[in-house]
Amino acid sequence: MKKRKVAVLGATGTVGQRFISLLAGHPFFEVVALTGSDRSVGKRFGESVHWLLATDVPDGVADMEVLPTDGSVDADICFSALPTEVAGDLETELARTGHHVFTNASPHRMEPDVPLLLAEVNFDHVGALERQRRERKWTGSIVANGNCTTIHLSLALAPLHRDFGIERAVVTTMQALSGASYPGVASLDALDNVIPYIADEEEKVLEETNKFLGGWNGTDFVPAGIPMSVHCNRVSVRDGHTETVSLTLRGKPSVDAVKASLRAFRGRPQERCLPTAPQHPIVVREEQNRPQPILDRDAEKGMASTVGRVREDPILGTKFVVLGHNTIRGAAGASVLNAELLVAEGRVG
Amino acid sequence: MKKRKVAVLGATGTVGQRFISLLAGHPFFEVVALTGSDRSVGKRFGESVHWLLATDVPDGVADMEVLPTDGSVDADICFSALPTEVAGDLETELARTGHHVFTNASPHRMEPDVPLLLAEVNFDHVGALERQRRERKWTGSIVANGNCTTIHLSLALAPLHRDFGIERAVVTTMQALSGASYPGVASLDALDNVIPYIADEEEKVLEETNKFLGGWNGTDFVPAGIPMSVHCNRVSVRDGHTETVSLTLRGKPSVDAVKASLRAFRGRPQERCLPTAPQHPIVVREEQNRPQPILDRDAEKGMASTVGRVREDPILGTKFVVLGHNTIRGAAGASVLNAELLVAEGRVG
Amino acid sequence: MKKRKVAVLGATGTVGQRFISLLAGHPFFEVVALTGSDRSVGKRFGESVHWLLATDVPDGVADMEVLPTDGSVDADICFSALPTEVAGDLETELARTGHHVFTNASPHRMEPDVPLLLAEVNFDHVGALERQRRERKWTGSIVANGNCTTIHLSLALAPLHRDFGIERAVVTTMQALSGASYPGVASLDALDNVIPYIADEEEKVLEETNKFLGGWNGTDFVPAGIPMSVHCNRVSVRDGHTETVSLTLRGKPSVDAVKASLRAFRGRPQERCLPTAPQHPIVVREEQNRPQPILDRDAEKGMASTVGRVREDPILGTKFVVLGHNTIRGAAGASVLNAELLVAEGRVG
Amino acid sequence: MKKRKVAVLGATGTVGQRFISLLAGHPFFEVVALTGSDRSVGKRFGESVHWLLATDVPDGVADMEVLPTDGSVDADICFSALPTEVAGDLETELARTGHHVFTNASPHRMEPDVPLLLAEVNFDHVGALERQRRERKWTGSIVANGNCTTIHLSLALAPLHRDFGIERAVVTTMQALSGASYPGVASLDALDNVIPYIADEEEKVLEETNKFLGGWNGTDFVPAGIPMSVHCNRVSVRDGHTETVSLTLRGKPSVDAVKASLRAFRGRPQERCLPTAPQHPIVVREEQNRPQPILDRDAEKGMASTVGRVREDPILGTKFVVLGHNTIRGAAGASVLNAELLVAEGRVG
Repeated sequence: MKKRKVAVLGATGTVGQRFISLLAGHPFFEVVALTGSDRSVGKRFGESVHWLLATDVPDGVADMEVLPTDGSVDADICFSALPTEVAGDLETELARTGHHVFTNASPHRMEPDVPLLLAEVNFDHVGALERQRRERKWTGSIVANGNCTTIHLSLALAPLHRDFGIERAVVTTMQALSGASYPGVASLDALDNVIPYIADEEEKVLEETNKFLGGWNGTDFVPAGIPMSVHCNRVSVRDGHTETVSLTLRGKPSVDAVKASLRAFRGRPQERCLPTAPQHPIVVREEQNRPQPILDRDAEKGMASTVGRVREDPILGTKFVVLGHNTIRGAAGASVLNAELLVAEGRVG
Repeated sequence: MKKRKVAVLGATGTVGQRFISLLAGHPFFEVVALTGSDRSVGKRFGESVHWLLATDVPDGVADMEVLPTDGSVDADICFSALPTEVAGDLETELARTGHHVFTNASPHRMEPDVPLLLAEVNFDHVGALERQRRERKWTGSIVANGNCTTIHLSLALAPLHRDFGIERAVVTTMQALSGASYPGVASLDALDNVIPYIADEEEKVLEETNKFLGGWNGTDFVPAGIPMSVHCNRVSVRDGHTETVSLTLRGKPSVDAVKASLRAFRGRPQERCLPTAPQHPIVVREEQNRPQPILDRDAEKGMASTVGRVREDPILGTKFVVLGHNTIRGAAGASVLNAELLVAEGRVG
Repeated sequence: MKKRKVAVLGATGTVGQRFISLLAGHPFFEVVALTGSDRSVGKRFGESVHWLLATDVPDGVADMEVLPTDGSVDADICFSALPTEVAGDLETELARTGHHVFTNASPHRMEPDVPLLLAEVNFDHVGALERQRRERKWTGSIVANGNCTTIHLSLALAPLHRDFGIERAVVTTMQALSGASYPGVASLDALDNVIPYIADEEEKVLEETNKFLGGWNGTDFVPAGIPMSVHCNRVSVRDGHTETVSLTLRGKPSVDAVKASLRAFRGRPQERCLPTAPQHPIVVREEQNRPQPILDRDAEKGMASTVGRVREDPILGTKFVVLGHNTIRGAAGASVLNAELLVAEGRVG
Repeated sequence: MKKRKVAVLGATGTVGQRFISLLAGHPFFEVVALTGSDRSVGKRFGESVHWLLATDVPDGVADMEVLPTDGSVDADICFSALPTEVAGDLETELARTGHHVFTNASPHRMEPDVPLLLAEVNFDHVGALERQRRERKWTGSIVANGNCTTIHLSLALAPLHRDFGIERAVVTTMQALSGASYPGVASLDALDNVIPYIADEEEKVLEETNKFLGGWNGTDFVPAGIPMSVHCNRVSVRDGHTETVSLTLRGKPSVDAVKASLRAFRGRPQERCLPTAPQHPIVVREEQNRPQPILDRDAEKGMASTVGRVREDPILGTKFVVLGHNTIRGAAGASVLNAELLVAEGRVG
């Protein structure tokens, strides 16, 4: 298969760096363009990036010139790690000019013709692309990721909603610093501290989870309608969001039935053996002190969610802890998997 | 007033150190004895302690000899920071031999004749001391603290339960490292990590909260009977437990009514102006990113609980975040306040 | 004594906050004005500051209006925590218009008529103020602090240079995050990391130490001329710079003689019992694992340097570790002490 | 090539875990036995280990039974991560009974017939094995690693000593928490802190570096005789020791000549393309803020030392920063490389 040309938009940030790292040597994709802000445009990527990953900048990438983010980007597929403030307009412009945009940015997520795609969970949502292209008269397209917290929560909830039905959920998150990008959280706020607030995050988790777990009726998205209460916190962890979940499932399934549902979960990426697909999208652990960020964030190369401490909840019925890598499966990796899936299904280009 | 002679049992641990620090220059109490394990007995305290507080060991204390913990301790009042494994028997022996023991250890907490005392909340529970002395034939007594997580949760819940009635609560904790004493949590487990489990903690929070908020009918404790779901986590914070709380209050009070109830809360320690009593047992903050451990754990010298982000909960009705210092109000400070109260009320000696 | 009116310039930063905290209830000074950047001017201080200290904003201060930094500031004495980029010109303007500026900023530090004052060490340098006022035709004045690393190093070196003479020194620093102000170091750079570089810091330590330890010949400063090699590192510590020092002293004094020299050190602030003066400017500890930031940064309310592990150095002769609070004695506290000294000596106003 | 049977002694600790991880799928070696303390013997490895690496326990290993450490261990080669207290006698017993022991433990390091082997640096020291076997009448052998700090320092110093000659060095270390094994440093000592002392470490660095860089004259080791002053500190970093080095080189080579010497360095492991050999044993970086633990500890899969900030030292002549992974190249990886080299050279079995 001839590799598709791809661009990374907003390549210098923490998510942009993850894209570059995940796309190095990718069997489907070849990075031919990197874009950045005015501050970086025209410079070598290696010069303009504050690289934060333990692996070096991949060969060849360091010497690429940072380009402006506009319709002239010469790539079929664009992976967007653009900042919220500019992502909306720039992504629209790129889709209009024929680019297939897979984005981590939030502006388009909740639009009625933009699939918020979680590859194992709601592939039928790509039906919305026809409406998107028709009504917007785009030759390209936009497919969105959820936010990092929502992705791992929704992965864990998806099989439970399908197998039992979720009536309500109460969630508390302990989110990693890399979720706030770079420079993001000041070290003086992070060290020896918890910050019990992340702007707009609780609302996003509620809305996006209900879009992920909802349906597509051929014309519109139909939200799942699950009431949720969310408390979001920032903790002193580099990567890996940890979330405690209490929820009510229809029919009061046993703890064993819940674990079995989580363990059995597979989706189209696994069927098609996509390169970035985790073998087990959900890893269930039995140790009572797992999952932990340092031990579990890299499970399945950071593409799985790890669930532990599944047990009865005296109020809601069932509870557990879920953890996942926020910049891999929770961001760049989710986009790459989405793009792999649409390419494999012949839905792109 | 002549100062009472007091001993600190288990003086070398993190809670023992807090006792010593809080008792330095105390108007009611004079530390005359420190006890420790076999490893320390006979040594100077200054030699045997791994001191962890930013203030130096108080003058005079460093040179005291560490004594064994037994009935020969020459003090009316004993503050116990003994380890769980030995606390039960040793405290019984001391109470039998005429000592008034105020303890942070867990073994006696749930016994039917031991007051689990939170000074502002359930002073009537000291009625159980008569039964305790009568049935056990003790000349001394045991009064217990709750565990550190429970104390701050119960302080925040107490006015709400009194003013409205609590029907149920879902709680997630993010607990500080000092709660596990010293050496406690290994740095390799704490750095860049969250541990989603603390042995026996979730059970303790449930049971002890219901004892704190329940009544004393003259013969027995009557638990409050509030169903609770608790998720306990350890995070990389030195001091200060943060807890997210979703709860259902009878009559669906408004957010303003909830805040007013919390702010108005006072108890007998405030009426009697006890030396260690916080002016406001509960501090309510309006900033959306508070409370935070580094900013709020020392509120009212560590003796208050700080509540923030009071807001509606779409599932349970009300939610907020509560934070407090786990080794001051959550442990040593609570015992000292309990002792002050019983002395002031003439219930000791 | 009537309190002098003082202003804090650049009041919202980490050093500005320390000034406000140290000046609360000060017997000599009363804060009447706070200045800030355009972003803050006109707002209430409480609104515009990201407060980072465990104690609350002092009463009265939160409601003060943030003013612009210019000659209209109505205060005799100005404590400057201005950012480097703007401090030079603004401080000049204030001195020209009659204000006595005590500054933590670096632009004026090495000027030939500006005293770089370390209150216990080089009071004779204030002789330069006459030259400063005469040549610059200022009615006010500028007195500078050294940088935070240099202050603690120079405090420890001062008695040794006076008693023995220092021939050379090799220094490695492990500096706290608050030294980079706020937001300063990103948490993603700080967590689980050491950064072996701080811009311009090694040069400053060399130059400023030699100015501190040098003389004033009535016309010019005469640098001490001590060759030094400095390695500066940033570590994951909130407050408190730790420095390892290997140095050659004339006459090869014994370890005991070195400790005696450090312990005996006193200066004019101690003689005059100034309110902010530490009783012991240098605390010498015997424990082999001290000083440590969490245990020693608050020694003498953060105004002392703590020295430990004094021992023979097989190459340079003597070595030890010195630690001190970087935003108290290393910044705001040093300025306040300097101002107290000049007021007490009748050299201001 | 038929794989050799190997055992990991003291397999449950942090270094033992690294051995297991590095030996998974190794082309020369097959792990057939794991030993542990009495507490673990007889249990499944998976049950008795507190696993701390982000990768899971390799397949097959989790189910192995933990054996006692004695002469009955059925393996040609033993990798020892035994605790200091027991390593001396147990390793002697194993060598006596025909095992080739490659050890990280310190007891045998400085013995006059035990090679302290750093594979690229002093292969000629293996000449001592003949004396060892002859005098001790062993059928097996002991080859030792240096301590983790020493290994990275000596790797960086080796080419400089060979190309120029080192006259003296002053070193300050900032060492990672994993260097103290598990549980090791308590989190209450590590968080927000620096500990300026590590027991016996400064002496080890001095002695071992001089053994590494010294010679073997056919009968005895001849220490290099380089005077060194060492300051050892523990910092809040998981893995990766950072060291600042000031040193005097004969002939005052330029900064460029020093870098060229470091970059050109290769040894026998590179010539023989051993499986664990780093392509570049020393990576030299030009960025002024490198090396950093989070970015550089995994260079060459953790088998290289990274040097940065090579510059002139005003006192000693040359200075730089060196960093390396303390449990890979600094411990388990060094032993594995040593074993590979001796196998490839036909010096084992």
